[in-house]
Amino acid sequence: MFLAEGANAVLESLDSRTAERPRTDVREVLATSEGLRRVPEIAERCAASGVPLWTVTERAAACLSETVTPQGLVAVCEAPATDTATVLAHRPSMVVVLLDIADPGNAGTVLRVADAAGAGAVLFAGETVDPYNGKAVRASTGSLFHLPVARERDADTVLTACRRAGLLLVGADGAAPSDLHTAEESGRLDVPTAWVFGSEAHGLGEYGERLDVTLRVPIYGRAESLNLATAAAVCLYASARRIRPVVE
Amino acid sequence: MFLAEGANAVLESLDSRTAERPRTDVREVLATSEGLRRVPEIAERCAASGVPLWTVTERAAACLSETVTPQGLVAVCEAPATDTATVLAHRPSMVVVLLDIADPGNAGTVLRVADAAGAGAVLFAGETVDPYNGKAVRASTGSLFHLPVARERDADTVLTACRRAGLLLVGADGAAPSDLHTAEESGRLDVPTAWVFGSEAHGLGEYGERLDVTLRVPIYGRAESLNLATAAAVCLYASARRIRPVVE
Repeated sequence: MFLAEGANAVLESLDSRTAERPRTDVREVLATSEGLRRVPEIAERCAASGVPLWTVTERAAACLSETVTPQGLVAVCEAPATDTATVLAHRPSMVVVLLDIADPGNAGTVLRVADAAGAGAVLFAGETVDPYNGKAVRASTGSLFHLPVARERDADTVLTACRRAGLLLVGADGAAPSDLHTAEESGRLDVPTAWVFGSEAHGLGEYGERLDVTLRVPIYGRAESLNLATAAAVCLYASARRIRPVVE
Repeated sequence: MFLAEGANAVLESLDSRTAERPRTDVREVLATSEGLRRVPEIAERCAASGVPLWTVTERAAACLSETVTPQGLVAVCEAPATDTATVLAHRPSMVVVLLDIADPGNAGTVLRVADAAGAGAVLFAGETVDPYNGKAVRASTGSLFHLPVARERDADTVLTACRRAGLLLVGADGAAPSDLHTAEESGRLDVPTAWVFGSEAHGLGEYGERLDVTLRVPIYGRAESLNLATAAAVCLYASARRIRPVVE
């Protein structure tokens, strides 16, 4: 169970319930009168989908909230029992693997980018933060409810599963000898791909060698590096430009 | 005058002083004994370049700092007196225009992306935050010291100057009918370009019509949008892939 906070996340959680393959189940919604006044669609959608809606005090809403200025809108959600194998069974043409990404804001932002670029799944591998961490949910701005995610502590299991699902394992690595643009132009990215991203501090570490290829985003200026989300955006859109992913 | 905080920023500020075209002048460096012990290069470089180095108490360092855990390393810098015309006089092949970007973290992160993608200048237009705002400086992770920036309150002046400098004015707009990939493939981005980014909340507003073209980053999945920095990364690298900018 996890909490999804704010108008956007609560609406997305209610919408995802009516999706063909529901990814989360909303147990109930807790909202202040002020919150319901500002976002009347919430009461409508709760009624339409039979989700219990409880009006709570500002004080109760503040206790439930992790943010400084609570919106007074919280959905109590059940995380789907997905695992890596189930998520890959649909044979997505683009998958994102987050390797030891401890920062929830970074993980959530990459989830949003993965959704925009048409990834079919995001796998939280190794010591990566819980996808249902409050800050990660907020940073994903609803994308957590759009595409399947799974968490697996053993990173090798994730990489093996991706390889078995027919995905090319491509790692982003600022120190790689090959660059993204050259790989893209040579047709290297025209196949179903699992993009693997490590943390800004530690990169891919020992896992780099186990991938099919590592690529660097070329740095044309004098910046030392890109941050995780912007590097992921450039990599995933390079693949998307070639694959033109169709999302179910 | 502005403060650059942390080991990375202080070292970059000292390095930029010895660059061919100095962009900032470091007046003095203030550091705690602990800070100097951790980063001994700072004392060396101050001595080599004749910049006064003052040892200060932890308490003084905390007062100078805007961060929760101060590193005890601060450079007092003089902002260069650059204006839009001077910055464009070098005829850069890629320029970034930030239009009414109030959030310093966003502005600084885009500055870092612009540096990585090889932009020749970043113009802070309209109500955009001061480039020397402490949070913007930190988010730029040193890129403020790498490429010329200028601030100009009148956004029309900036757009006119870009057009006179021979730059195609391209705006990023999630609602634009043309998409980035199609424009890129048709050769539309093979020319010197000024990329114009508005805020996430208000977009390009009335300025959209005054540009040569507006393009959207295609959304393949179900995300509503990308955040400013990730959208900028995708756009600037699309141009960089075509132009292959050479930074002086």
